[in-house]
Amino acid sequence: MAAPGEALPAQQDLLLAAAFVCDAQYNRNIPFETSPQAVRLYYLYNHWTMQAATYFFVFVNLSLAVFEDPAVYPLPFLATSLVEVLCLLVFFSRLLHFAKVTPRNIFWKDAKNICLMLAILVTLTDLIIHGTLKICNITSVRYSRIMRPIFLVNFTESRQMRRAFRSIRNTLPEITYVFLLFMFSVLMFSLMALKLFGDRNLQTVEGSPYFTNYLEIVFDLYVLVTTANSPDVMMPAFDFSWWYSLFFITYVIINTYIFMSVFLAVVYNNYRKHLKNEIRKLAYMKRHKMVEAFNILKVKEGSEFVVKESQWKQVVKLVAPEISTSHRELLLRISDDEQKGYVDKKSFVRLADLLNIQVITMKIRSHPLEHWLPHVYNSAASRFLRSMVRHKRFVWTYDVIILINAIFIALDEENPLISYAEWAFLSLYITEILLKLYTYEPRTFFAKNQFWNWFDTLIIIAALVATILNAAFKSTSKYNGQQVLDIVFILRVLRLIRIVDSIQRFRVIMNTLINIVPTMLTFGGLALVVYYMFAIIGMEVFQGKIQFFAAGSTDPHALECGNVALKDSTFARAKYCKNNFNDIASSFIVLMELTVVNQWHVLAGGFARVTHQAAKLYFIAFHIVVVIMIVNIFIAFILEAFFVEYSLEKSEVETAIEKKIQELGVGVQEEELLDGKLIDNMETTENNLEGDGIKTSRGLVFKIASKRYRTVDALLQRMFEAEIPSEDEGLSFNEILNLSPADVYPKSPTFDSAA
Amino acid sequence: MAAPGEALPAQQDLLLAAAFVCDAQYNRNIPFETSPQAVRLYYLYNHWTMQAATYFFVFVNLSLAVFEDPAVYPLPFLATSLVEVLCLLVFFSRLLHFAKVTPRNIFWKDAKNICLMLAILVTLTDLIIHGTLKICNITSVRYSRIMRPIFLVNFTESRQMRRAFRSIRNTLPEITYVFLLFMFSVLMFSLMALKLFGDRNLQTVEGSPYFTNYLEIVFDLYVLVTTANSPDVMMPAFDFSWWYSLFFITYVIINTYIFMSVFLAVVYNNYRKHLKNEIRKLAYMKRHKMVEAFNILKVKEGSEFVVKESQWKQVVKLVAPEISTSHRELLLRISDDEQKGYVDKKSFVRLADLLNIQVITMKIRSHPLEHWLPHVYNSAASRFLRSMVRHKRFVWTYDVIILINAIFIALDEENPLISYAEWAFLSLYITEILLKLYTYEPRTFFAKNQFWNWFDTLIIIAALVATILNAAFKSTSKYNGQQVLDIVFILRVLRLIRIVDSIQRFRVIMNTLINIVPTMLTFGGLALVVYYMFAIIGMEVFQGKIQFFAAGSTDPHALECGNVALKDSTFARAKYCKNNFNDIASSFIVLMELTVVNQWHVLAGGFARVTHQAAKLYFIAFHIVVVIMIVNIFIAFILEAFFVEYSLEKSEVETAIEKKIQELGVGVQEEELLDGKLIDNMETTENNLEGDGIKTSRGLVFKIASKRYRTVDALLQRMFEAEIPSEDEGLSFNEILNLSPADVYPKSPTFDSAA
Repeated sequence: MAAPGEALPAQQDLLLAAAFVCDAQYNRNIPFETSPQAVRLYYLYNHWTMQAATYFFVFVNLSLAVFEDPAVYPLPFLATSLVEVLCLLVFFSRLLHFAKVTPRNIFWKDAKNICLMLAILVTLTDLIIHGTLKICNITSVRYSRIMRPIFLVNFTESRQMRRAFRSIRNTLPEITYVFLLFMFSVLMFSLMALKLFGDRNLQTVEGSPYFTNYLEIVFDLYVLVTTANSPDVMMPAFDFSWWYSLFFITYVIINTYIFMSVFLAVVYNNYRKHLKNEIRKLAYMKRHKMVEAFNILKVKEGSEFVVKESQWKQVVKLVAPEISTSHRELLLRISDDEQKGYVDKKSFVRLADLLNIQVITMKIRSHPLEHWLPHVYNSAASRFLRSMVRHKRFVWTYDVIILINAIFIALDEENPLISYAEWAFLSLYITEILLKLYTYEPRTFFAKNQFWNWFDTLIIIAALVATILNAAFKSTSKYNGQQVLDIVFILRVLRLIRIVDSIQRFRVIMNTLINIVPTMLTFGGLALVVYYMFAIIGMEVFQGKIQFFAAGSTDPHALECGNVALKDSTFARAKYCKNNFNDIASSFIVLMELTVVNQWHVLAGGFARVTHQAAKLYFIAFHIVVVIMIVNIFIAFILEAFFVEYSLEKSEVETAIEKKIQELGVGVQEEELLDGKLIDNMETTENNLEGDGIKTSRGLVFKIASKRYRTVDALLQRMFEAEIPSEDEGLSFNEILNLSPADVYPKSPTFDSAA
Repeated sequence: MAAPGEALPAQQDLLLAAAFVCDAQYNRNIPFETSPQAVRLYYLYNHWTMQAATYFFVFVNLSLAVFEDPAVYPLPFLATSLVEVLCLLVFFSRLLHFAKVTPRNIFWKDAKNICLMLAILVTLTDLIIHGTLKICNITSVRYSRIMRPIFLVNFTESRQMRRAFRSIRNTLPEITYVFLLFMFSVLMFSLMALKLFGDRNLQTVEGSPYFTNYLEIVFDLYVLVTTANSPDVMMPAFDFSWWYSLFFITYVIINTYIFMSVFLAVVYNNYRKHLKNEIRKLAYMKRHKMVEAFNILKVKEGSEFVVKESQWKQVVKLVAPEISTSHRELLLRISDDEQKGYVDKKSFVRLADLLNIQVITMKIRSHPLEHWLPHVYNSAASRFLRSMVRHKRFVWTYDVIILINAIFIALDEENPLISYAEWAFLSLYITEILLKLYTYEPRTFFAKNQFWNWFDTLIIIAALVATILNAAFKSTSKYNGQQVLDIVFILRVLRLIRIVDSIQRFRVIMNTLINIVPTMLTFGGLALVVYYMFAIIGMEVFQGKIQFFAAGSTDPHALECGNVALKDSTFARAKYCKNNFNDIASSFIVLMELTVVNQWHVLAGGFARVTHQAAKLYFIAFHIVVVIMIVNIFIAFILEAFFVEYSLEKSEVETAIEKKIQELGVGVQEEELLDGKLIDNMETTENNLEGDGIKTSRGLVFKIASKRYRTVDALLQRMFEAEIPSEDEGLSFNEILNLSPADVYPKSPTFDSAA
């Protein structure tokens, strides 16, 4: 860390301070060196092109599995291995770049970097060995492929995912105890089942002996926990005497309902606790960085240290070159409330948050048609048309049209009248969009946050293009263009979603769901990592053991999936042959089926038959990792997101900006934008704006981006900021790193803590 | 409510005040009249015998379904209807009793009472009509049987259940919107599926056309949400092209994972919100009652109103005649901290809570053997034996014995050596218990809250009795006593649970689970009500349609469950014939299977075949009510219980008692009790206790009952008490009733509120 007294030239000072602010703004945690060269390298490291390139190569590296044997689209080994070497080179240079930026002792202390280096090294060795053996015609296992997700987790901006993984790791001990207790219960019930049913000479539906082998009972009862073989596993005993059903009901209540809920509770509670600790660390870190930046820039003004307005502006320009001058002026007005020409520490520290709030700068413009054809546009007919489009009934009319459309879609496609009707509907929808564009200002209509306008327009245009393409195919050739037709069908049905947006209650739920999307993407990454690893293992173990033969195949083994071991198996009877690990796409689909859980014992049984009974362990492991851990974390994610949405209003900082925007009279509500009232309002209040301290050009307004774009993560972070004493310098760097989740825990439980 | 100035004689005053305290203590909400006669009737109404009788008759009334046609154990109609009339009479007189106690206008305003009267009337009418028709040999439907759970919900002490039902009712609107959105999504996906797969001429595994009928698609996709037909429903499309699997994966992610989690979130959030409001009302009500009682008893003492010690004692004696004198003295010392001879308002209001805390009064007694045979008991050998039993290794030895026992249980029963080993193990366990009884004071060992000691001893004694019975059966007759043997097996395996208690981490989890039991019982009642109603409907609709033929039956229709409609159905092929609605026990088992969800579409399909396709609606309704509502509430219950357990330490009031107990030096820790250190401690500190202000007889100690026995409900209630301003009189009766859940919501969200 740079002591403020260090002799850097002024421009370097600014660059360094901006680097700190930048780090704070994006919640980065890169302890960069403060030498001028390192700061420049730091900017380069965080440039979006560099980040995009890293993402791209991580993606390429992962998708190699599509082209490697067993491949969806086979490519020669030389090609895939060359690409892999290229990826490794990129990863290595990225790591080198990071090493140049970071102080040496910190770089080597970080497990992440060691992990990356090891992964690169192992992959390289593995490639060389595999290649050499291949030349000698010896097939070997490319075990290092399993390490590829490491790059996804440890590189790039996937800090959230890293945090999620750390939280999982920290949750493990507690889960393990519950899991052991749960397994104990399963083992005990299995023992009971063995004693109760083992000597009864009962038979399963398939005629095999019922509950005679302890290990098989354990597996069957484990499957029962997942409910996949209910009620079949119970039927022989139930047929014998209905009292025995009590055994299974007790088992299900204890192990499925109670234990699985306890798993959810433990995962939820621990995961949240650890996640909160991580986020709190981030909040402290942000404060720490902002104070560093302040200390570099501060000058004495009266009794307190402040940052001069000019310096402040230069830093903001460096940190966020993309924001408009008027936006910067607005931020300054908020930071320097009394226009004293400097920013005090408290306001300066808030800068990172202010920069993070999406303030949309809009120029209120009259409609372009008004500009070009004022007479036509402002004529009585035009005015009437526009007021009609703005009327509620216009929306209702189109809702009715959508409903009629839904009925037509459901009807038979072959009828020519109905396929003509499709053209009619398409033109009605296009008319709607054109009418709206005529009424509302186009750039307002297509503003960044007008999710539904974008959605509608894209769906309609895509449907138009696809329908035309489809008609062209139909008339010109015998090729029936099934793919295009499928897309047309999907687009047509998706159009119906619009009706949801016209009902207020539905819109609220939808908005919450859309809010959750960013969080779910993190979760998607998490799932991808686990799936990828299991898919690679699955392909190594089960590849080629089960074959799929298309309908009408004459192969004698078609009915037993190309493997005699599957003869008369439930697997083959249910026609599950296509559920195999013969390429990465199939593997992912099978893993998805295993996640859904139902029939997983049939899949496990099938694969165990073609390999070995121990193969069931693979499926049990997948169940424990994915269904008990990952899915519960997913549910916890969604619960948390909903609760945060329910209990939180706008955060403090956001309110500060909004207040200032309102104060300056340059605010605008989202509703006004859509109703077109805006322009009318602006026309009347226009004069008041002129001559204000902030140079608002005529018709310039600001707007806080809709709540829709805030994530749970961001909300949690802001909550923690309230916790940190504002006058304080905050904790030291090491103290921050050593914060423990126990500290997060509320010390004095209130009603809220249980709420 | 009685104005304090009303002219009741002193004894009546005390009775009335005690009635208020009693009401507050048990969280009753009976607005009784204050006339002397009404107060006496009120005591009678709440006497435990009256309550037990009501419970008994509610139970009898519900269990009539076992004996009525279709019966598990058939009884003539005359017998069951006479019993039912008797039950109705009891219910009516209970209601009459309640009417006598309650002010008339309040009685008639309460929906609960109207509901009960209607239920009694309708049942009576139904009985008469049904009886008359039966005499004329016309069979009619006993539709009023569906109303029986009303008595369970509205009578007796089932306030918790009533509250749960009210909360469900209040949650309905919000759930409905999410449900509609969810159904919209299912319908839209079904439309897409129809367009995508309808014209492909695909076939299901059973050879029927795939996705051609819209209503069938909707049902299939609804089943897919429950995951019951995954991956079968996908396979035909997947076999055709693997791209189509994306359709199903998207569907499952959106509808199963996201929507079902949203249901959980909405149910959880709303249910909790409403439950908290109810509990908060209770807390206010309690305060209100206590203030009423205080106002009756208060006398002026200096500047403040107080209750005299003698009056206080008399009220406590009236309210809780069962508590010991020393316990009462302890409570007085807590209420009258400075021994001023009176209790002030603040302390008096706390009385209801103090009475609710289980304080166990224990007389520390030396071991009876020490009393009878002091020389033997205190001899060196005896002392060595006792120290051995107290040693950790003693526990470990028995853990090893249990493990060896587990292996023996798993081994073959026929081997005579092993059945001898069973006797050896039994004697080892009995020796253990005897040794422990020799070492620890028997009454301490079998104290009320020593759950595991009770558990161990009961299991061992039961196993001993059952094993002896079994041996007796074996030797004397050819009857193999299978039931007894089954019980022996179960008891033997249950013994293994003990090993859990010797590992600290497991014990913590187990204790939390045991803590949840009371809450789960409420839930059990809730489930019983819903199950009972569905079972009655199910029996009316499906009774006799499906028959079960025991294995080896020669009936030609045995394989198709006695119904030709089921020929070649999945239902018959899976041998589900015993899953029918032919009596209440079978109905409950089928409903349990439906709750577990797996294969529910096969069950629904089977019953739809033997009646009508519309029968599927019954199963869908059950799924919505039980799986989406009730199971989610159950999960919410468990989550909440875990979170409260995690975040709460002992509550304020409890701590006050504990502090006082410690202050007086009469406290005892649970651990000490078990380790037997207690007596040694007592022997040394004995003298200090003598001559204390509180008349502790030699060796008398108090102990707060273990946390294990506290419920979530009680915890929540205490949390709310902290909220009520203590100086305040509290809200008025009507204000309390009109509290809305919105008020419960934290106004200023803090970190805790999202925790």
